[in-house]
Amino acid sequence: MSSFNYTIAIDAMGGENSPDKVIQGISLFLKEDKEVFFNIFGKETLIIKEISQYKNILPQNYKIINCESQIEDKDSVRDAIKVGKNSSMWKAIESVKNKESHLVISSGNTGALLVISKLLIKMMDGIDKPAIAGLWPNFKGVSVVMDLGANIEFNEKNYVEFSKIGAELYRSIFDKKNPTVALLNVGSEEIKGHEELKNAFNNLSNGKNNFNFDGYIEGNHIKDGDVDVIITDGFSGNIALKTAEGTVNFITSEIKKIFSNSFFGKVCYLLSFPLFKKVKQSLDPRKYNGGIFLGLNAPVIKSHGSADGLAFFYSIKLSAKILRGGLVKRIKSNFENE
Amino acid sequence: MSSFNYTIAIDAMGGENSPDKVIQGISLFLKEDKEVFFNIFGKETLIIKEISQYKNILPQNYKIINCESQIEDKDSVRDAIKVGKNSSMWKAIESVKNKESHLVISSGNTGALLVISKLLIKMMDGIDKPAIAGLWPNFKGVSVVMDLGANIEFNEKNYVEFSKIGAELYRSIFDKKNPTVALLNVGSEEIKGHEELKNAFNNLSNGKNNFNFDGYIEGNHIKDGDVDVIITDGFSGNIALKTAEGTVNFITSEIKKIFSNSFFGKVCYLLSFPLFKKVKQSLDPRKYNGGIFLGLNAPVIKSHGSADGLAFFYSIKLSAKILRGGLVKRIKSNFENE
Repeated sequence: MSSFNYTIAIDAMGGENSPDKVIQGISLFLKEDKEVFFNIFGKETLIIKEISQYKNILPQNYKIINCESQIEDKDSVRDAIKVGKNSSMWKAIESVKNKESHLVISSGNTGALLVISKLLIKMMDGIDKPAIAGLWPNFKGVSVVMDLGANIEFNEKNYVEFSKIGAELYRSIFDKKNPTVALLNVGSEEIKGHEELKNAFNNLSNGKNNFNFDGYIEGNHIKDGDVDVIITDGFSGNIALKTAEGTVNFITSEIKKIFSNSFFGKVCYLLSFPLFKKVKQSLDPRKYNGGIFLGLNAPVIKSHGSADGLAFFYSIKLSAKILRGGLVKRIKSNFENE
Repeated sequence: MSSFNYTIAIDAMGGENSPDKVIQGISLFLKEDKEVFFNIFGKETLIIKEISQYKNILPQNYKIINCESQIEDKDSVRDAIKVGKNSSMWKAIESVKNKESHLVISSGNTGALLVISKLLIKMMDGIDKPAIAGLWPNFKGVSVVMDLGANIEFNEKNYVEFSKIGAELYRSIFDKKNPTVALLNVGSEEIKGHEELKNAFNNLSNGKNNFNFDGYIEGNHIKDGDVDVIITDGFSGNIALKTAEGTVNFITSEIKKIFSNSFFGKVCYLLSFPLFKKVKQSLDPRKYNGGIFLGLNAPVIKSHGSADGLAFFYSIKLSAKILRGGLVKRIKSNFENE
């Protein structure tokens, strides 16, 4: 590895507008943090051309590893594994396996990223399945919600494992000693949860946890910010995330429609522009960009495919926090003690 | 039954501010629709006192059935069944069983309402489980989403059954001949859905349906309005609904906070007041008040516990639509033909 404290492998080719947005994100990051070195995987000519536009990306900040091929969003995972060995994604993940990088970020195909990461970086001893964690804004700050879609089938052990992993993630990002963890469940007492969830609840209620177990939480209380880490199966988690995204889009579109429907509305909007800008900033999903794959021997960060340069910057920033917080070591210590 | 076309049994005692909001809802309804007769169950003295405040509720519009006891939200379903036989909820449901009413509305304890309805009104022949359906606003109008929490465990047959039932509900409320139905699922192709869901997908793709089966839909596309009926298991459905509620609340609170944080903001808000009022009206959850229990031999409507008079009015309006649309007969015809 380089003489820098942290080295991040970047798959520069995944998602929309790559590698431009990726390089823009690196430039934004280097303006505020100089402790990270980047191994950049992708088409060298395109990457060099884009880097030349940013004066603050210096030769000592990065190394380009030319990869002529790339995995496309439409590729099946099977194809990606079969023919993707020279792709930017594969090579980036491989550099983590070979200890040339500490962490990998990609905007590419989620399924391929998950499966190739599992194949090369491998699961930590004692952890059954990887999980995808995400940041979720709330009234008091940000929570971690997981699993957001890696695992459709879930058992008691997964809930308990993921509670521990999620607590360590929160601890490493936000430096809070004793984060609060709860299990996502449905409302009415009588119809509450399925067996696996109830068993996990009992297990966590009676167990000696290094976090504060707060029982069940309902979907309408995620926003309250009283719980730091919300654990759910990948099916419900993905549906919660996507439904929340859709709802934000629905409301903001309704507001835009109403304010642009009349001359009076347009005047009001212009006058209130600084306030609407603040609202937009406060709700900006780019600040929470980055699905964190957990349970592997190194962190893997999935940037949203449609992310722009600013959003990619936030996923690099999150990655640096995770590395500084010593996440992998923290998680490992939980499972070695068992 | 009365000489009116439709008779609705009202549990006047459930939820907050009852029976006041219930009577207010009836008054609002009678202003625009005179074809419905109400059997009102609850504390007679309180109901009479409240009715006296509304000049448009005439003696021929209703009958009060005095019930001294009521089921509380905090009561367990077991207790409700054991000691609730003289409660307003029980008696209201019983009046449907005895064919004195066509439909029952309650703001009370959801679990008790579901179980007592199942006990007294019974499931239709050929249908395994009841489902809770709800109205969900979208860019083009309103969709139906179900199950919102009645069934945690779900199998292939439930998905298929509920697709048929949901289509009939949509047809009876919105008078659309060939509604579009889709199954709620998660994003990535590779990790798509569990076995039951995949089997239901195959079954519906190959089956002869009296609706337009549109495959899978993700949570972020519910709002698009391209699908009329969205079918999911009760666990995911409840989480989607609650998460959407929480997200609406989060966004509107952020907007309020930003506009009330400065003098300038307050001025902008005052100026834009008619527009914000429109936004509020467009997003008003009261318009979509009413969980519809389906699969029973008569429709049962659960009004939100915290609903006010206007919200209760909307659930009566929905009930009248369901009765006029001949929902129960429609659903029955699907299962008799099998």
